Amino acid sequence: MITTASYATISANAPLAPHTIVRRNPNAHEVLVEVIYCGVCHSDIHQVRNEWGGSHYPMVPGHEIVGKVVKTGEEVIKWRIGDIVGIGYFIDSCHQCEACAAGEEQYCEEGMNTTFNGYERDGRTPTYGGYSTRITVSEDYILRIPTSLPLERVAPLLCAGITVYSPLHRFGIKSNSNIAVVGLGGLGHVGVKIAVAMGAKVTVISHSGNKREDALALGATDFIASGEADAFTTNARRFDFILNTISARHNYNDYLNMLRRDGTMVLVGIPEPMLLSASSLVLQRLNLAGSLIGGIRETQEMLDFCAEHRVVADVEVIPIDRINEAYERILKSDVHYRFVIDMKSLKELETT
Amino acid sequence: MITTASYATISANAPLAPHTIVRRNPNAHEVLVEVIYCGVCHSDIHQVRNEWGGSHYPMVPGHEIVGKVVKTGEEVIKWRIGDIVGIGYFIDSCHQCEACAAGEEQYCEEGMNTTFNGYERDGRTPTYGGYSTRITVSEDYILRIPTSLPLERVAPLLCAGITVYSPLHRFGIKSNSNIAVVGLGGLGHVGVKIAVAMGAKVTVISHSGNKREDALALGATDFIASGEADAFTTNARRFDFILNTISARHNYNDYLNMLRRDGTMVLVGIPEPMLLSASSLVLQRLNLAGSLIGGIRETQEMLDFCAEHRVVADVEVIPIDRINEAYERILKSDVHYRFVIDMKSLKELETT
Repeated sequence: MITTASYATISANAPLAPHTIVRRNPNAHEVLVEVIYCGVCHSDIHQVRNEWGGSHYPMVPGHEIVGKVVKTGEEVIKWRIGDIVGIGYFIDSCHQCEACAAGEEQYCEEGMNTTFNGYERDGRTPTYGGYSTRITVSEDYILRIPTSLPLERVAPLLCAGITVYSPLHRFGIKSNSNIAVVGLGGLGHVGVKIAVAMGAKVTVISHSGNKREDALALGATDFIASGEADAFTTNARRFDFILNTISARHNYNDYLNMLRRDGTMVLVGIPEPMLLSASSLVLQRLNLAGSLIGGIRETQEMLDFCAEHRVVADVEVIPIDRINEAYERILKSDVHYRFVIDMKSLKELETT
Repeated sequence: MITTASYATISANAPLAPHTIVRRNPNAHEVLVEVIYCGVCHSDIHQVRNEWGGSHYPMVPGHEIVGKVVKTGEEVIKWRIGDIVGIGYFIDSCHQCEACAAGEEQYCEEGMNTTFNGYERDGRTPTYGGYSTRITVSEDYILRIPTSLPLERVAPLLCAGITVYSPLHRFGIKSNSNIAVVGLGGLGHVGVKIAVAMGAKVTVISHSGNKREDALALGATDFIASGEADAFTTNARRFDFILNTISARHNYNDYLNMLRRDGTMVLVGIPEPMLLSASSLVLQRLNLAGSLIGGIRETQEMLDFCAEHRVVADVEVIPIDRINEAYERILKSDVHYRFVIDMKSLKELETT
């Protein structure tokens, strides 16, 4: 067993604080990864504070992990010591259902095994995430990280990146697609970059006008402040596709009415239930769809795409002892656009 | 001008009663059609009673028309006197927008001109529908009716038929598609027949068990009574596609949870706004779509498909003086499955 430093919370009300966990020595098909960077996702906060219910403690959050292979199980042939790898939202699944067979492990019919606040396949062993110095994972559930990119800016791609890439790719966004990205946060800012890299003409929709310059700097060609009067009426039937990254409750119908005939809006957040008007869908033959991260194969494809097009997240790197402050700033949307923990700061704690 | 007998209502509260209208002599590109049968759609009642707002009176309802060409404009070459033709939900559109150019006139950007309770292109001349002995229409907005089928059973295909055919065809329903049809009324019963003709395995979902035998007789292989306890949980993630014909308010999420990963539910009715849970869409990557009748080209394709597969509606033929009673019976769902007016009954009034 490998004694490992982490940051954990012991209840929904406690701050994150230093905590020691043990990682097992990798079995035949596992690798031990030394965590270099870990992104901070808003869903970390939801789970730390038990806002989705079902949280179990102690909890070590983190599912946007970039690290280095430091030990390999005896039958591992895909990975070598020193490889830079990524770990995302899940670390295992049943391997056998139709979804797993299709490489869509995130929809595993038995439920994927999440990287933290979940359990391993045995249903008993809790999973601890990336706010730690090491993690032991199956060789089949890690990604190859393009080392041509700055690693701290790659970490958020493991969750935010795949969440937006998957629907953009699935719905065939391409040169001259006229699309909107709603919400310019951790997800949205990567969505803009990826869509622009795919050749799309991208408009950012954000509540106030504050993010207009940021949006244009990210490659958007236009900006709509949805809080302004007439924003929805003057932009009616304008887009072919809308990537909706908002996780707060909002009026779907307003955005659907911005779609042209046969347009699609994909939700990647899970807001509270909201009234939907069927007429929005029927009268213009629209689609309202959902999308959940991506499978291992598609996540690798996304990483390779991002390497080719030099797409990375905009991040603020922090030492782990600033994580509680970072959570507060995320809740105030005071981050451009993703916090990433430099795990050297935790390693130092471990060795002192 | 051609003096024409009709049944009309003069206000939202008045019954339908005999009324005389005038039809114009067909202009160069129009034909005069003698109405043989006209189906009775629930939307006739909504409009007669001004339940959607904006109704104008006197109103002659009817948009499921089968008739015979009795006069042709001088430049009409597609149609000859004696041709059996159909007229559906609309009788004109702008001819120029992207939707019209694509043969999707029902989504005309200027708004289609509905067969009744609308206006012609001039925006002033009211349109009067098929509860009349004759109608003058553009040669481009009528359909060729396969005379191998019983005409009274074809009439409902002009609205109910195309409404269900279009999404079934668009989403590629084919041999062994595992689908559900929700609601077994005027739309649903034709939907079952068309889906079965496409080779699909069809389950009917209806509130009570009353329609089980009917559903199986129509070709469904299974039946779910949605009002029974556990109906939704025991049938979770079962279907690839759901054709939802319900026009009353209902819980979309219950039905979405019956879809397998990547499944689609298409709404063809327009219920009052209802709460939608994003998690239904996100966690299984589902689509919720809408669909509105079909364009002229697709309606012709539907009629030809129905002729090839001998799909027709189940109807109860009535004389026009029983129309008010028929409306009351429709509101009680006491019809299997569509009333069709035999227009001989009105012609007799005209000639006495």
